[in-house]
Formats: sequence, structure tokens, C-alpha cells
Amino acid sequence: MIHASICTIGNEILIGQVVDTNSSRIAAALEEAGIRVTRMVSFGDDRAEILNNLRNELTQSDIVITTGGLGPTKDDMTKAVLAELSGSTGYVEHAGQLAIIHDILHSRGLDMLEINRAQALVPDRCEVIENRLGTAPVMVFRFPTDSFNATLYALPGVPFEAVGAIPDIMQDIRAHYPLTNILHRSLMVYGLAESALSELIAPWEDALPDEMHLAYLPHPLTGIRLRLSIYGGMHEEQEARVEEQIVRLKEILGNRVYSDQDDTLEATVGRLLKKAGMTLSAAESCTGGEISHLITSVPGSSAYYLGSVTSYAVSVKEKVLGVPAETIEKFGVVSGEVAAAMAEGVRKVTDSDYAISTTGLAGPDGDALNPVGTVWIGVAGPNGVKTEKRHFRNDRKRNIQRFSAEALNILRLQILEDLSH
Amino acid sequence: MIHASICTIGNEILIGQVVDTNSSRIAAALEEAGIRVTRMVSFGDDRAEILNNLRNELTQSDIVITTGGLGPTKDDMTKAVLAELSGSTGYVEHAGQLAIIHDILHSRGLDMLEINRAQALVPDRCEVIENRLGTAPVMVFRFPTDSFNATLYALPGVPFEAVGAIPDIMQDIRAHYPLTNILHRSLMVYGLAESALSELIAPWEDALPDEMHLAYLPHPLTGIRLRLSIYGGMHEEQEARVEEQIVRLKEILGNRVYSDQDDTLEATVGRLLKKAGMTLSAAESCTGGEISHLITSVPGSSAYYLGSVTSYAVSVKEKVLGVPAETIEKFGVVSGEVAAAMAEGVRKVTDSDYAISTTGLAGPDGDALNPVGTVWIGVAGPNGVKTEKRHFRNDRKRNIQRFSAEALNILRLQILEDLSH
Repeated sequence: MIHASICTIGNEILIGQVVDTNSSRIAAALEEAGIRVTRMVSFGDDRAEILNNLRNELTQSDIVITTGGLGPTKDDMTKAVLAELSGSTGYVEHAGQLAIIHDILHSRGLDMLEINRAQALVPDRCEVIENRLGTAPVMVFRFPTDSFNATLYALPGVPFEAVGAIPDIMQDIRAHYPLTNILHRSLMVYGLAESALSELIAPWEDALPDEMHLAYLPHPLTGIRLRLSIYGGMHEEQEARVEEQIVRLKEILGNRVYSDQDDTLEATVGRLLKKAGMTLSAAESCTGGEISHLITSVPGSSAYYLGSVTSYAVSVKEKVLGVPAETIEKFGVVSGEVAAAMAEGVRKVTDSDYAISTTGLAGPDGDALNPVGTVWIGVAGPNGVKTEKRHFRNDRKRNIQRFSAEALNILRLQILEDLSH
Repeated sequence: MIHASICTIGNEILIGQVVDTNSSRIAAALEEAGIRVTRMVSFGDDRAEILNNLRNELTQSDIVITTGGLGPTKDDMTKAVLAELSGSTGYVEHAGQLAIIHDILHSRGLDMLEINRAQALVPDRCEVIENRLGTAPVMVFRFPTDSFNATLYALPGVPFEAVGAIPDIMQDIRAHYPLTNILHRSLMVYGLAESALSELIAPWEDALPDEMHLAYLPHPLTGIRLRLSIYGGMHEEQEARVEEQIVRLKEILGNRVYSDQDDTLEATVGRLLKKAGMTLSAAESCTGGEISHLITSVPGSSAYYLGSVTSYAVSVKEKVLGVPAETIEKFGVVSGEVAAAMAEGVRKVTDSDYAISTTGLAGPDGDALNPVGTVWIGVAGPNGVKTEKRHFRNDRKRNIQRFSAEALNILRLQILEDLSH
């Protein structure tokens, strides 16, 4: 098995100013290709630190991927250290990257300065993968040398650029290393805790052939991503065998599966609405805009999403959504009756086909009737209105996420039911 | 200067399933105390890996902080390796942590199993800091031994618990290490790019005494946090000297400073509204609910926030917000005129004192009249309505954040202006 190390270079990581998300994205890509990441290391913009740490990783791993330290200012010194480490005798200007730098500056209305031009200079012992998203090129150093037998990929630190370079470096790795055939399939599951899901599919999981491996990847907004991987064998045959297992798993889980690719609830709901030719609106109280934010995070959501009302104040519930004052008085703001009236209200006001609503207590405080973490969710549609109550035990931020995901899932199940009639 | 290493133990980090946020939080706390973090390392749940990596860090640093690998299942082996490394001769049960485990299980309606009880067992060569937020105690190993001269703090990996343990371990570090006196003050600044800010305050920064240090900590939602630190000297004297510099800096920056502590725009706007005894509503188009989500993320926001309308569809702009069809036709949806009508509309509908609005193009597509990244922001208040246009060059997600922060800042400046009259 091929082993890899991921290195993050930059003082901003070490002082806790920036969370390193690049390493995780790179690790996920390597893992999907069957490469084992044995270590991630972060260290500072310091010649001796960079040299020591890179020497150490190059001795222990087949592939070393670094991010950061490639900026034009003098505190960024990764390029100089890599020139030294690779025994380069000087720098050469890379015409392709220089043209990209020129384009980027031009689009911002800026002239090319010496400091910009220097970004296209690379040590003469490296190969360049052009970085179309920024000024610093990706550098590839192949080290079958006296000291090391490894390849080093140096990526820029800006997350947008580092993540953008992943497909290119994965292609280079595939071209130079004998990777095990590995095939992944994902199912997105919502509505079961990890332990309950594990119990439910235990007989299926226990019967999996040895070369297949199942991973649980949970997230508060998307539920659990089940990833089935198969190692070795021929590609077509693998696909058929994995497909067979996926079909069985879908039978066990039923409509708890909302997608068979890496996906989100909001994108799934969007596809269902498009398929049904229907529109959506939302009335949010305790979720405060998060549901609307999630739905509109999907590019193209304006095709089916009309809008929402965040009714934080009782007066807005009554005046904008038309929730009767006596309903609030009789049942309380956090009640199924108010959730139903909110969903029906926003559906009417926006003239949408479907509407979802939330009313609850995200925290830090509960009220006289309900503990923190209580939420009522309403779904109104062509066949009437339905409400459901849920209770979570999290802090304010996490409760808002869980309430929102739960509402999107209840809506998904309702649209599915309506579509099946 | 005291040197520290932060280690993250767990396969879930190495396969890119989980982003390590613990290290960043711990690093920030160490840095604020004047301790230099030289390395962060992540490695897997494997005896040899843990031993090798911890030996290496204990040789190079004064303080080693680990998170993860303390769970009750057999794949978590940090505790066993620490027992070995510390020369412990066995395990002892910690009565205090056992009582906490009992309480946690009881509150969830569960009985104590052998696997739960084992969580209170710790190597006999460690000291325990109780973990009230979870079942695994924090373990402190003091290593003035033949091999190492360092202290190791082993924290649980659950972020909630790891972050919760930071104050306790910082207290222990202060009690055992001679830390330099260090004092930090923060100013939150919005409305200037880092380079422009740097240029503006250059004369002030250049004149800073040697023992003072300025750091720029930028974030798309909060602008730039300027942190001024002073090393050495007596506490009271330090405070007076830093205060003097802060006063000067505030004079230079004026109302671009929105807070003199670590803070957010939405919390600042909330305080201003409370002070003015005024209420707020929002009308969002391209920001899709993010502004409302930010405002309602602040606990207690229901005291001044009435609600919002997300008017994604033109019909909702017209029907719910009362934007005249001819305004949209004449000026286009993305226009100052529509932003003004949206703000006035939601102000009227919710009967709020202030209202903010956004209409723009977050991406991926622009329209015939405006490029991606264009936004018009409206602010309506007791003294009329104002609009401003902005243009950013980011992806959809980042544009939504920048639009939202910009709107909150324009609102903040308007309230300040109104309060000063």
C-alpha cells in the first residue's frame, strides 16, 4: 500500500488563527484512491523547521503533499527550501503560469509587478502543474535521489486553490503509482442514529464479503453517509457486485435513503420539487433563516423556491402569516397548531405548492411548557397539513442545524408520498 | 519561551472524515498565554504510531497536548500507550470521574456497564482533571524522567469536551510553568481590506514600542480582528500602556471599529438596537436567509428582532413586500430602487423601526445587466431609506457571507448616525 503524509506550512495555523481544512480534503481524496495517510503535520514558516519536517516525512512516506508558504512575501519560504532540498541549481520562469498571473492581474485592473512575476519562477528540478485559480503554481518534485524515494507535491495554501489542485495531483499520482483498484459507492441516510443504523443493518454488514468495507460518515445537516468500498478485482465485475449489495441495503433502509451519491437533503428536496413541477416556501421561527439559507445554497434553487417568512415575533406570525391570536393563546407558540398555521400561512401568502415551518426552542432557554431543544415542524402541501414534534439535546447552534435538517427530511418524505399517489 | 506540540489521535482525521478543529482552539489558548506552538501532528489509533510520535514530541517540546483515542472501544488505545510510556504499574479508579460517568448515564436513563466503568480507570502515574462534559477524564502526565522533561495533557477528542477542558489545562500550565506576562486587547474592524488597513495604520504601527506586537486576524463574516499584545512588565502598568495605544488606534480608525473585544457584527447591531430601544426586520433576496440566520444566532435576539421575508421569487417581492411591479420592470430586480422598496416593504409589514434588504447575484450566474458578485443593500429606518451597491469576486457561498456582513455593517453605521443626532 502507498503511504502519504500531508504537511501544512504556515504560522497562522500554529497560532490558532486558521483551521486547516485543506489536509482533510486532500486526505479524503487520497483515501478514496486507496492511499493510506499515515500522518498530518503542521509547522511554521521557518527554514530549519521546514527542512527538518520535510526530510522526516520524505523518509517515511511515498507521497508528501504540502500546502502553504508559497506566497510572494518574504515570510513565505517553502519554495526556497524546496529548491535547496531538491538540489536545484537555480530558478526558471514558467511561461504558462506567467500567462495565468498576467490574466488574473489584468482582470483586477492591476499591473504586473516584479513580486507578481516572481511567482512564476520555480526551482529547476521541479515539474509544474499550472494553477488556474491563483498565482502560485503547483510544484512536483520527484525524489528518487540518494536520500529519499518519494514524490513531493507543493500546493498553495489558499483553500480554494489547494482544493482546486486535488484532481490534478490525483491524476499525476495515478500515472506514477500502482494503485489498488478500489471502488466506492455512497448512500445518504437520514432518520436513524449511528447506533440504530448499525444495529438495523448488522446482518447485511456481517455477510459482506471480505474485500468489501463499510464506513459510516455522520454529519448533523446531512445524516449519515454510508460508503461501501471494494478492493481489488476487475472494474466491471466490481461494479456489479457492489451494485448487488447496494440494492439489498436500499431494501433494508427504504425511504431513509435519500440519495445514492454524496449529497444533501436540500439538494434532494430541490430535485424532487423539480420532478413534481412544484414550488416551496418556508416559515421559520426558531431556525431563524437557516432552512431558507440551506435551500438557497443550492445553485438554481430559484427555479422552485419562492421565499420565506422568518416570524421571530408573535406579531409577524399573526400579521404576515395570519396565525390566529387565539391559536397562539390556546396552544402556546411552540405547538403543533401554530406550526400548522405557519406552514399554511406562508403557503397562502407566497402561493407555493409546499411549505415548511418550524417553531421551537433552540436555546439557551426553554419556556414554561417546553424544554430547550423542542421543535414542532409543519409541512403543508396539496394534500393538507401535517405536524411533527422532535426533541434534541444540543446547544443553540447545533439545535438550529438539527431542527432544519429534520424539517427538510419531513418535507422530503411528504413529497415522496404525494408523488407515489 | 515555552514550546508546545499538539497531537490529534484518530483514524477519522487521517481519512478526511473529520476536520480537526480542536488543535486550532488549543493553539489559540496557548498562544494567548505566550506559549509557542511549534508543531501539530495527527496520527492514527495504532500502538507503534502513538508511541513513536509521542516520544518524538516529548523530546522536542515542553508541553504536549493530545486529543482523541480515549473512548471505551477497543480501537481507542491512547490510554494504554500512555500507561506504557509513563512507566505506570497499573490502573486506578478515579472516584470523582466515576461519579460523573454515573450522573451522565443516569440522565440518559442508562445503567452503568463494565465498559462505562472502565472509563474512570487511569494509569497510576497520572493526575486527573475531571471532565464534567463527558465520560473520559483529562489525564496529566508529568515527565521529568530519564527520557523526557515535559508535561503531557491527554484530552478527549469530542470537540465539545476538548474545548471545555482548555481552561483547566491552562490553569495547570500557569501553575507549573513560568509564563511571560502577556496582555492582549482586540479591536474588531470592518470596511477595509487587510492591505488598506495596514497602510492606514502604518505610522501608528511603526511607532509601537518593541514589546508590543500587532496581529491581523481576518474573517469574511467579522472583518478583521486587530490584536495588540504586550509582553513583560507589571500588569497594571501594561494595561495603561496598551490602553493608550488602543485609544490612538480608535482615533485613526473611527467608526470602522465596531467593538473592542472579540465580537461579531450581528451581536454589535443587537447591542445598538437594545440601546436605542428599536426593533429590526430584514428582506433578503440573494442572501437567502443568511442575514436572518446570523441575527438569530445571537442568544436573546428575540428582544429586538421581529423577523424577515426571504423574497426569492419576484411574486413574493411584489405580493408580500409590496415592491411595485413597475419598479422591478424599470430598474431590474438587482437595483437600488428594488433594494429600497424591499427594505421599506418589510419595515411596514413587520412594523419594525429598522429594516435591511439585499438583492443581488451570488452566483454561479450573473444576469444581462450585472456580473456575479453584485449586490444592492437597502437600509430603512426612522429617518428614511438608503441604498448602497457593492461588488465582490467570490464563489456563491462566500458571496452570500460577504453580502450579509456588508449589510449588517451598513445597518450598524446607520444606527450609529441616528443615535448621534
